[in-house]
Amino acid sequence: MKLYDSRRAPNPRRVRWVMAEKGIEDVEIVNIDIFQGGHKSPEYRAKFGFANVPALELDDGTGITESVAIARYLESRYPEPNLFGRTPEETAVIEMWTRRVEMGLSTPCMLTVRFSHPALAAIEPPDPDHAARQRTQAESMMKVLDRRLADSEWIAADRITMADIIAYTGLDFARMVKLEPDPGLANVIRWRDAMRARPAAQAGV
Amino acid sequence: MKLYDSRRAPNPRRVRWVMAEKGIEDVEIVNIDIFQGGHKSPEYRAKFGFANVPALELDDGTGITESVAIARYLESRYPEPNLFGRTPEETAVIEMWTRRVEMGLSTPCMLTVRFSHPALAAIEPPDPDHAARQRTQAESMMKVLDRRLADSEWIAADRITMADIIAYTGLDFARMVKLEPDPGLANVIRWRDAMRARPAAQAGV
Repeated sequence: MKLYDSRRAPNPRRVRWVMAEKGIEDVEIVNIDIFQGGHKSPEYRAKFGFANVPALELDDGTGITESVAIARYLESRYPEPNLFGRTPEETAVIEMWTRRVEMGLSTPCMLTVRFSHPALAAIEPPDPDHAARQRTQAESMMKVLDRRLADSEWIAADRITMADIIAYTGLDFARMVKLEPDPGLANVIRWRDAMRARPAAQAGV
Repeated sequence: MKLYDSRRAPNPRRVRWVMAEKGIEDVEIVNIDIFQGGHKSPEYRAKFGFANVPALELDDGTGITESVAIARYLESRYPEPNLFGRTPEETAVIEMWTRRVEMGLSTPCMLTVRFSHPALAAIEPPDPDHAARQRTQAESMMKVLDRRLADSEWIAADRITMADIIAYTGLDFARMVKLEPDPGLANVIRWRDAMRARPAAQAGV
């Protein structure tokens, strides 16, 4: 298998984080420079259909994009430690929280960066109103998450799962635009610091 | 199990569609009137954490929101016909397409309605600029989908899958704001008509 990766973008980081948690070292990494448009080449588009990074090329040539689809596939090949759930019930709770934090926090964090950080202006025209809408959404979700993390050490289970990886990588990316948890959100801060202390936080960063 | 459902909203319709495809008839349906705020009651929030519909209450009392998490759980209990994939490779391709059409088409379709249709003004203040942004995104994804459907009868596999259900229910909802495929997108039209002709298209509508 080959993983097409990009060091500076948050979605590829999700997959690198999963690989670090699982100790996966036998997947070849191909670096794509998205600022140079490496993901827009005819060869790349022919392989994956979309100009998206990350992308996983299976041994039979099948191309998979979408970080969560790639991560779930990697779990099928490298089951431990489990990140997606061991039973249908646990899998449902983890997917519920993964989707909640992706739509409510990580995507708004990424869009705040995309629509307001000067470094992204070459990719997407800045739009302060849209960036402000996304920032408000992310801040609102952080409060919800703080209540959840008052009852639970991790977001979706009694251990780190895909939900934590999605939430943290989105939140960490948003430091670029000074979108950070309010210091009063003590549970979010505790969880963020626990994520930051994991060896995987350093993987490929 | 009990499914908390709402007849007029597109996300609950995804789950009803899955139930219709699988012939599931032994899940109790509880109707929630979201225009009356039934999902915002203290009892509902206590059960599910979020004021979201649909929601599935498992026999052990666990509450699951998020339509895709609910649908995947239902597949674990009612495996046939398969909608999420039979092998890790097929599951990855189906999840990739499910996410592509959800983020690129269905969510933009729903947001176009939410931010521009008068009937939704009580829930969300209208925002013509944001609605226009979402409409443009949906129209762009329809062109991508047309190219995919030139090569494939269904979006993600050789049969209907969760990807088709997510795409169609979003697109069908957007008829409320006259957001429809251009007649020149012959493959999308063919696929849409095939979805519309399924018995599940009538389920609970």
